[in-house]
Formats: sequence, C-alpha cells, structure tokens
Amino acid sequence: MSKPQRLFVEAPLSQGARVPLPNDQAHYLLNVMRRGDGDPVVLFNGCDGEWRGAIRKTGKRTVAVDLAEKMRDQSAPCDIDYCFAPIKRARLDFIAQKATELGAARLQPIVTRFTVSERVKTERLVANAVEAAEQCGILWVPEVAEPMAFDRYLADRDPARTLIFCDEAAPVSDPIEALTAAPEGAFAVLIGPEGGFAEEERELLLRGENVVPLSLGPRVMRADTAGIAALTLLQAVKGDWR
Amino acid sequence: MSKPQRLFVEAPLSQGARVPLPNDQAHYLLNVMRRGDGDPVVLFNGCDGEWRGAIRKTGKRTVAVDLAEKMRDQSAPCDIDYCFAPIKRARLDFIAQKATELGAARLQPIVTRFTVSERVKTERLVANAVEAAEQCGILWVPEVAEPMAFDRYLADRDPARTLIFCDEAAPVSDPIEALTAAPEGAFAVLIGPEGGFAEEERELLLRGENVVPLSLGPRVMRADTAGIAALTLLQAVKGDWR
Repeated sequence: MSKPQRLFVEAPLSQGARVPLPNDQAHYLLNVMRRGDGDPVVLFNGCDGEWRGAIRKTGKRTVAVDLAEKMRDQSAPCDIDYCFAPIKRARLDFIAQKATELGAARLQPIVTRFTVSERVKTERLVANAVEAAEQCGILWVPEVAEPMAFDRYLADRDPARTLIFCDEAAPVSDPIEALTAAPEGAFAVLIGPEGGFAEEERELLLRGENVVPLSLGPRVMRADTAGIAALTLLQAVKGDWR
Repeated sequence: MSKPQRLFVEAPLSQGARVPLPNDQAHYLLNVMRRGDGDPVVLFNGCDGEWRGAIRKTGKRTVAVDLAEKMRDQSAPCDIDYCFAPIKRARLDFIAQKATELGAARLQPIVTRFTVSERVKTERLVANAVEAAEQCGILWVPEVAEPMAFDRYLADRDPARTLIFCDEAAPVSDPIEALTAAPEGAFAVLIGPEGGFAEEERELLLRGENVVPLSLGPRVMRADTAGIAALTLLQAVKGDWR
C-alpha cells in the first residue's frame, strides 16, 4: 500500500469529525486511486492543522473522512507575495506549483507593459497550487488574487512590504548581500514577463520606497526560472530556511 | 522584425566564414520562423564565442550563414556537474533546460535505488539543453553523460570535486552557511528521485570525502524544484552570481 492520499478541503477539521468530500475528490479517491472504505487519508484545510482519518463510503459515489488523529499543528506561511506577469499556460501552471512549494502565501498576477496578455484563469492557478500543497506536505494553499495592472499595484502597495524585483543592472551585484541588507518582515517578489520590464516601469520600481533590485547572475533566465531563484534566495536569506 | 534567431552549431566560427546549417535548422529558419536571404542570425558553438551573420540561401532547402562580426568572446561554464535521478519525461525536459539556464557544465543522470527507471533519452536531454542555451544567451551547451549507477558514481568520483546533496537531516540547517564553508573550485550537485535516497545511500554519501549535505528548508520539495534551488544557492554563494 502506498502512503495515504493527502487532500486539501474547505471544511473545518476536529477530533472525531466526519468530513464529507466534494464529488471530485470522492471520484479521485475511489476511481482514480482505487481506495475504499477504511483506507487511510490525510486532510488539511489551511487553518486546523493536518489530520489522519479513514475513508467512509457514505453512498455509491459519496465519501466522507472520519478524522482520527491530528498529526501536525497548523503553521503559517511565510509572508511572501509572489507577483508575476502572466506567461504561457504550461509555464503558468508550473509557476503556481513552484511558488507554492517554495512557501509563498499569495500569488498575484501583474500585467506589465510587455506582458503577452493571455487571460489568466484564476481557478487553474488555484488548482495547481492545491496540487502542489497536497503533494509537498504543505499545510496551506496560497491565496490567488485577480490580475492587477502594474501601475495600480505600485500605487497601492504597502511600502512596509519589501518589494524585490530582478534587475540585471542592480547596483549590488551579489544577491545574497542585497537581500541581507533588506529589512526583515513581509516581502513581495515581482517577476516581469519574458521581455522584461519597460524602462519606465524599471524607473518607477527604483523610485519606490523599500524596493530591492536583485541581480541573478550573468546569464539571462526565463521568467519562471528567475522566479524560483528569487524565492529560493529569499527563503534562504530572510525566510524559514535558516 | 523580432530579434535575430540564435542557433547552436557544431561548425567552427571565424570572421568571414560561410557556415552551412544542418537540414533541421535550415527548415526551422525558413519554414517555422519564416526567415529568408539576408536576415540576421546569431551563432555559437561552445568554443569560438558568439557571432552575428546573415542567412544565405544556398539552394531551395539549404541555408548557410555568412559570419560578419564577433559579438562576444567565448566564456567558460562554471565547473558544476548536475547529477540527477531520472524522473518523468516532462520534468526531465524541464530539468535539462533549467540546469542549463543556471549554468551547469555537465548533466549526469544517476540511477539510485528508488529511481523509477524510465529509459533516459540522452539525445532528448541534449535537445532541451540546446534549446535553453539558444534562448537564454548562453555560450555553451552542457555535456550530457550516459546514465550511471549511484554506487559506481560514488566509487569513481574525484573527491576534489565538492559533492552537494540535499538532505533534510543536514547538521547545518542554514544552506548558505553550509555552502560558504565548502571549498572553492569544482562542484557536483546530486538530486535524488521523488522517493529520496535510500538510507544506505545517504550513509554512503555522508561517509564520502568532501561531501556537503544541504538542507532546503522545512517543506518537502519535488526533485526538480530542489535541483533548481540547490543550483541557485550554489551560484549565489560559490559561483558567478557574486
């Protein structure tokens, strides 16, 4: 028997509770994963910790989980917003998964000047974030925000949240040094589209309060790679990898 | 007109040379990218730097490039071997691309005990590495080695090359501290399969000379994410991102 399926649910979780599963999760457990009555399963909902329970078939196609034991207390995500220009669909799926694995609390699509504006399917970003959280033992699913225009984002941002953006021409070329000098607390990582930021966007960013330009070495990277690299360095220097 | 196509070729490159392109690249330029006689193109071959040239149709379906100007001198890759347990095909493509973008010099598939041994198509890894190098302005394509068994790799390795592997139970939990303490020089980054290393593999690794166990935070990551994170930290602490 492989290890128990791990599922994100919306319902509250508590000792002895019977948690009915939505149809899609019931179908997944019974028909895709071939699990049945009594098989173990793990649930989390982003606020009540992680619980072990057993599958209870409540009808021909309906399933609940009888919760038996709390395995882990709830932990909070790092206070990191991951802001990114929407890109092609497969890479967008990937970004939602990777930002979740790397511990982001919030995914915020940002439409910049050079963004090739495909419509962002928010529910698809959520589905990818849920999948990554389920598979990677994470106790929350990042909040997914509706797309926002670059100018609006900059105008509305809280300057107490340090904004990190990737900038080839950053004055401090060592990214660890640049992050070490930043204040502790809340962060946003902003990744531009494949074509980069427009010059006027870059100037707006550099004029912003509490903005850290980050240099990521001498090679050009794709936007998704730069995003993972920036989140990695942030977690290692300021986050919970220390 | 979008920016010139950038192509990796095997041929030597020098001032005024006419470089015939293989059929697949000729087809790509003429029929996929709709380029024609006189259009600019950029070539690199991993040893003679980067050259700008013009497309010369030498027949109905054949194309050469007349080299006009050297744009960049050849640079060397960082001396980093990226060693990884083969995983599912789409993620393997992705790993070859990302390791190239992050500046690895060599890709080495390693078959560990928990490796779900799908056959590794070396030529597919090469194609993905070439694509990433072409798109990301890299001046070389990493060498792709044939798969090797874990035990054989450990027995044959040069202990002067620092071996970094991801280990949740690493004694130094700060990955930047662990990498800072490692010697400068040549590196190998070893990423296990989704199921991790077997306990006896981990013990073998920890007994090895000049081996650095690296902790990547409190969350489980997929193998491909861990690989990008480890390469990012290595480039930032010991590589050419400083």
